[in-house]
Order: sequence, then C-alpha cells, then structure tokens
Amino acid sequence: MATRPRISDVAILAGTSVSTVSNLLNGRSNRMSRETVLRIEAAIGKLDYRPHWAARQLKTGIVPIVGLLVPSVANPSHGDMARAVEVAAEVRGLQVVLGNTLRDPDRERRYTSNLFDLGIRGIIIASSPFALDHFHDFIERGLSIVVLDLGATLDGVEISIDSVSVDNRTAGYLATRHLIELGHTRIGYISGATATVSRQERQGGYLDALKEAGIATNADLIAATPAAFGFDDTNAADHGRSAATELLGRPERPTGIVAFNDMHALGACAAVRDMGLTVPRDISVVGIDDILLGRLFEPALTTVHQPVDALAEATVDLLSRRLRAERDGEITHIILKPTLVRRASAGPPREVNG
Amino acid sequence: MATRPRISDVAILAGTSVSTVSNLLNGRSNRMSRETVLRIEAAIGKLDYRPHWAARQLKTGIVPIVGLLVPSVANPSHGDMARAVEVAAEVRGLQVVLGNTLRDPDRERRYTSNLFDLGIRGIIIASSPFALDHFHDFIERGLSIVVLDLGATLDGVEISIDSVSVDNRTAGYLATRHLIELGHTRIGYISGATATVSRQERQGGYLDALKEAGIATNADLIAATPAAFGFDDTNAADHGRSAATELLGRPERPTGIVAFNDMHALGACAAVRDMGLTVPRDISVVGIDDILLGRLFEPALTTVHQPVDALAEATVDLLSRRLRAERDGEITHIILKPTLVRRASAGPPREVNG
Repeated sequence: MATRPRISDVAILAGTSVSTVSNLLNGRSNRMSRETVLRIEAAIGKLDYRPHWAARQLKTGIVPIVGLLVPSVANPSHGDMARAVEVAAEVRGLQVVLGNTLRDPDRERRYTSNLFDLGIRGIIIASSPFALDHFHDFIERGLSIVVLDLGATLDGVEISIDSVSVDNRTAGYLATRHLIELGHTRIGYISGATATVSRQERQGGYLDALKEAGIATNADLIAATPAAFGFDDTNAADHGRSAATELLGRPERPTGIVAFNDMHALGACAAVRDMGLTVPRDISVVGIDDILLGRLFEPALTTVHQPVDALAEATVDLLSRRLRAERDGEITHIILKPTLVRRASAGPPREVNG
Repeated sequence: MATRPRISDVAILAGTSVSTVSNLLNGRSNRMSRETVLRIEAAIGKLDYRPHWAARQLKTGIVPIVGLLVPSVANPSHGDMARAVEVAAEVRGLQVVLGNTLRDPDRERRYTSNLFDLGIRGIIIASSPFALDHFHDFIERGLSIVVLDLGATLDGVEISIDSVSVDNRTAGYLATRHLIELGHTRIGYISGATATVSRQERQGGYLDALKEAGIATNADLIAATPAAFGFDDTNAADHGRSAATELLGRPERPTGIVAFNDMHALGACAAVRDMGLTVPRDISVVGIDDILLGRLFEPALTTVHQPVDALAEATVDLLSRRLRAERDGEITHIILKPTLVRRASAGPPREVNG
C-alpha cells in the first residue's frame, strides 16, 4: 500500500510552504490569492491527501461529507454556488453531496432526514427556506447547519442558525440606482413567482432606490412570474421572458428593467427582442448575480456581482468549525456586500438619447 | 403519528388510477404522458409516499438514496440531466445526491468510496470516465452502477457495466449533415480539451458526414480547447469562444461550425460577434445537446436534441431494478437516438446567398 501523503507532500506539489497549506486547511485563507488556493486544492486532490482532523473525525464515526441543499442546479447561479462550495469544502478534506429541494419544505426535510440517517452531520441549506422550524429537531440531534443566502432574519426575527448571505437589499438597490443615474425614471422590476426572503430583500432595495431618488412607486411597473408557473428555478429564463413581456405590454411601459436575477434578466432581453426592440437602445436591462453566461450574451449583461467564492468560503468555514466543535453555541451571521458590474445592457433612456 | 400514505392516496391526489401509479413505480411509464408522470410525482412528494419496495429496502439496511456523479453542474447540460434523473428517481421513492467529479478518476473513486461507506448501493456515473477499472471493486462489493452517456464500448471493447447513452456519433453526424445540406463545404469543428468517449464519438460523426458527402477532411478546420485550459465544463462557453476565435483566425476559415456541445456553440456565436461578423449570415453555428438556454440566444441555436428525460428514465429504471435484484447478471446497454432541431443559427453559406 502507498504511504499516506503528508502535508509536506501537498506543499511541495503546490510549490508553496507547509504553513500556507496549514493556514488554508484551518480556514485562514483570507489573505491568500485565489490562485494559491486552487493550486493547493489541486495538489490535495492529486495526492488524495486527507487533513489530520478529517481523519480524526473519521475515527469518531463522522463522515467527511457535507450536504448542500440548493433549489435546483438547473439554474446556473446555483450550479456556480455548488461548485464554489465544493472547492471550499475540498481544501478542508470534505466532500459535498448536493440535493435539489425545489424550495419545497417537504423535500428539504426529507433530504435532511435521509442525509442525517446516512451519518452526515453537516448541511448547508442554500435554498432560501421560508421557515426553519423543521431543521431545529435535527440540530438538537447533533446536525450542524449553515443557512446560505437566507439573510440573518426571518419575518423580522434574527434566526437561530448560522447564516451567510449577500446583502440582497443592497443588490437590488445598486441595480436600480444604476438605471436612475443613467437617467431612467420609469423603471420596471421583474421577480420570480415565489417570494423568498432574498427575493423580498432585492425588491426592497429596488423600492429604496426609487424612494431615495424621489420617484413614486408604481405597481404597474412590477411583474412577477405568474404563480401558475410554480417553482421557477428550472426554467428561470423562460419565466423572466414571460414576466418582461407582460410588463412591456402594459401602457406606460418602463424604459429600464431590473430583474431579480440574471436568468430572468436574460429572459427579459429575449422579451425585448421578441417585440422588435433593442437592448439597451429601447429598453435597458440590469440583472443580479453575475453568472458567467451574462458575459456571453449580446449585449453583455450589466448586473450586480454576488461574491460567490467568498460566500462559499465563509459558509464552509463556519460549518467545518462547527463540525470540529471549535465554536461554542453562539450563532454567527455573515453578510457580504455585492458590487455593480457595468457592461452593455444598460444605457440612457431613449428620450435622453435624443 | 400520521398514517402511512398508501398508493391509493397518491392516485386520488394525482387524479389518476392506482394501476397508473403502480405502472410508473415499476418503470412501466413508456406510454405515459410527461404530464401524468409529473402529476404523480408531485402527489408522491406532497404525501411523502414511499413505495413498498423502497420500504422493504430500508428494512434490509439499504438507503433509498442513489448517487449521481456528473462532471460539473456548472455546465447547464449536466444540471438539466441531474434534474431529469432526480425526477425519474423520485417516482421510484429514491432521492439523488449529486457529486461533481471534474472528470477526474481520483475524484470519481473518492466519491464512490465515500458514498459506498455511507451505505449507498446505487450510483449513476454520468461523467464519461476514461476507464472503469476503479469501479469494478465496488461492484464486487455490492454496488450497482449504471454508466450514463459513456456509450457501450471503451477502447472498442464492450463495457461490463450497465450503460445508457445517446448515440453521440449520430449527433455529430446530424449536426454536420445539416450544414452540408445547407450548402456548406468548409465546415469547422470545435471540441473540448478532454477527449472523452462521447466527444470522440461526436467528432467521429462529423467526419462520417463529411466523408459521406465526399468532402475531404481538413485538420485546419478542427480546433480543440487548448489543453492548458484544463477541465472544461465549468467555463465551457468561454472555452468555445477561444476555440472558435482560433478557428476563425486561420486562413480559409470555415463558413459553418459544428460545436461538440451547446455551451461551446454559444461561445462560438460570441466569437463570431467579436470579429464583427454575424450568425448565420457570415458563419453558421450548430450545437449538440439542446439546453434550454439555446432558445434564449439571438439567433436561437440550431442544435441536436439529446433526449434527456428518456435517458434519465432508462438510467434510473436500470439502476432501480438492479437495486431490487430483479435482474440477473446480464449487462444491458441502451442507446437512444438524437434528433436535429432547426432554429436560426444555421443558414446557407454566404457565397450561395449571393
């Protein structure tokens, strides 16, 4: 049998120092370049190196696998998030198994229950659930949970589970303010059928920006995917196309549209084209998420960047420290800031154009 | 405690007969409409109904969870496949946990080993591995495996594991023949960096179609993602853009491009735009896969449809029958046919246009 690889083997293969590898394995990677992290990760994978603490966990019967529940990987933004969580987990000797919940509490509970029965003791819930009650039983039985992208409160009350999220309200605000700064005053907003917490926050940010600019809110400028479409992550772009088509068919149509996520924004761009109009000359479109696909479209999508890697890193860091019982019972909430990414899908409104 | 739901409860909620539900649960869904399948699935989810055989498995210690290993859900075509597998599994009372292998045999083995250690006894390998040796040990220890989209042979030898795949050679052939029928004779081909079996087959189909039409093969018309890009599912569209840019920069550039998958095709369309040219007026582009996004692009992508739902259904059916020990040792290979989907990204070559 081959000798068990040591941390020094990882350092040599990655062309870095043992202390750098050790820092990464212990979650002290804040000041490390992404390149270094990826190089160390590749070396860990290549050598099948298992950090000592993971081996220790194995001895205590805890499996080196964590669960990640997302709404549906068919939405590229969740696929990107899953990939980032996997990278962050891997450097800590953890593998990730994924489940699609379709935002259905029954499915969340069933997945959680099944993963728990398998011996998995750490789960990341990235499906923006509407309630957390069904998870507390499991926590009492020894399951560690970190909620990703729910925010720190639910119905105005601070949640009692560790959480990591982007500041979704600021995301909605930045997208809308960008259109206001370009000169738009009739700004539409399209959203999914399901009013999850993160979606409510994004819409709240849209309303904040309008208010700040002294623009009256107009319910005619807001459209959601029809509820009959049901769960809306699998065909998000199609649903965005429908919602934008509805919005653009109303009298006094908007000159700019903020979409609550990039897939809906890409759908909205298609809706503008369907009507024989051009983005951004006739209608500007701004998304939120910054999925890779947004750069591929013509025009490239102006959007608000979610720091996916940093979100994943913080989430896995919290979870792995819980698993190693390094933290006491205190609940931690981490909220990261989004940033505007100016590309080509938003410009001045036509009237201003001349 | 609530009464355990019965099959009749499912039938009532789904508005169908008990025998229809039973047919679905037993894999006899060939003549059922997709709508009926989804309605029954929804009822099963709502009631948390577990089919009898799954309950029986639970009693014998086998968990009602199967693993699905894909290259990376960051590629929407794998995300779509994961979703379809999940639907097919769910109607059989099985949950799916997903892992991203990045086509790395080490990761394939580690995932397989970890899932096996958890008690999972059924795994779908949808990452087109280059070798299957590392799986045979697990099969001997009682793991049921179905290989998805590898094809029935590896290095010309029939594989000894159940398999389900689309006829990838026909897919490459259909895409190329479409361009030939439109009048193209200088037809380029772009592929990923990694020569997986399914990719070799698709390229083989491209060559078949050229040969059939009496068009000489020209190595200058074939470009692959540079190997330095490494694993190429995460940023597939960017890689397609690079490969197409390279191809279009060569003397005697092609008038049409076949891309080995849709993400590369969408990247190729961006490359054509980057050069100030127009799809399909200057360059036609045809993809393979038929991901949802292809319909969203302008021009909508002409492509070859992979029957994702049917592939998933056949795969889960094979696996679940193995898990129930309903089948003897005989290996089954199922190969489904792809079909051409004509949209707007391919037209006659410019010379013919006039």
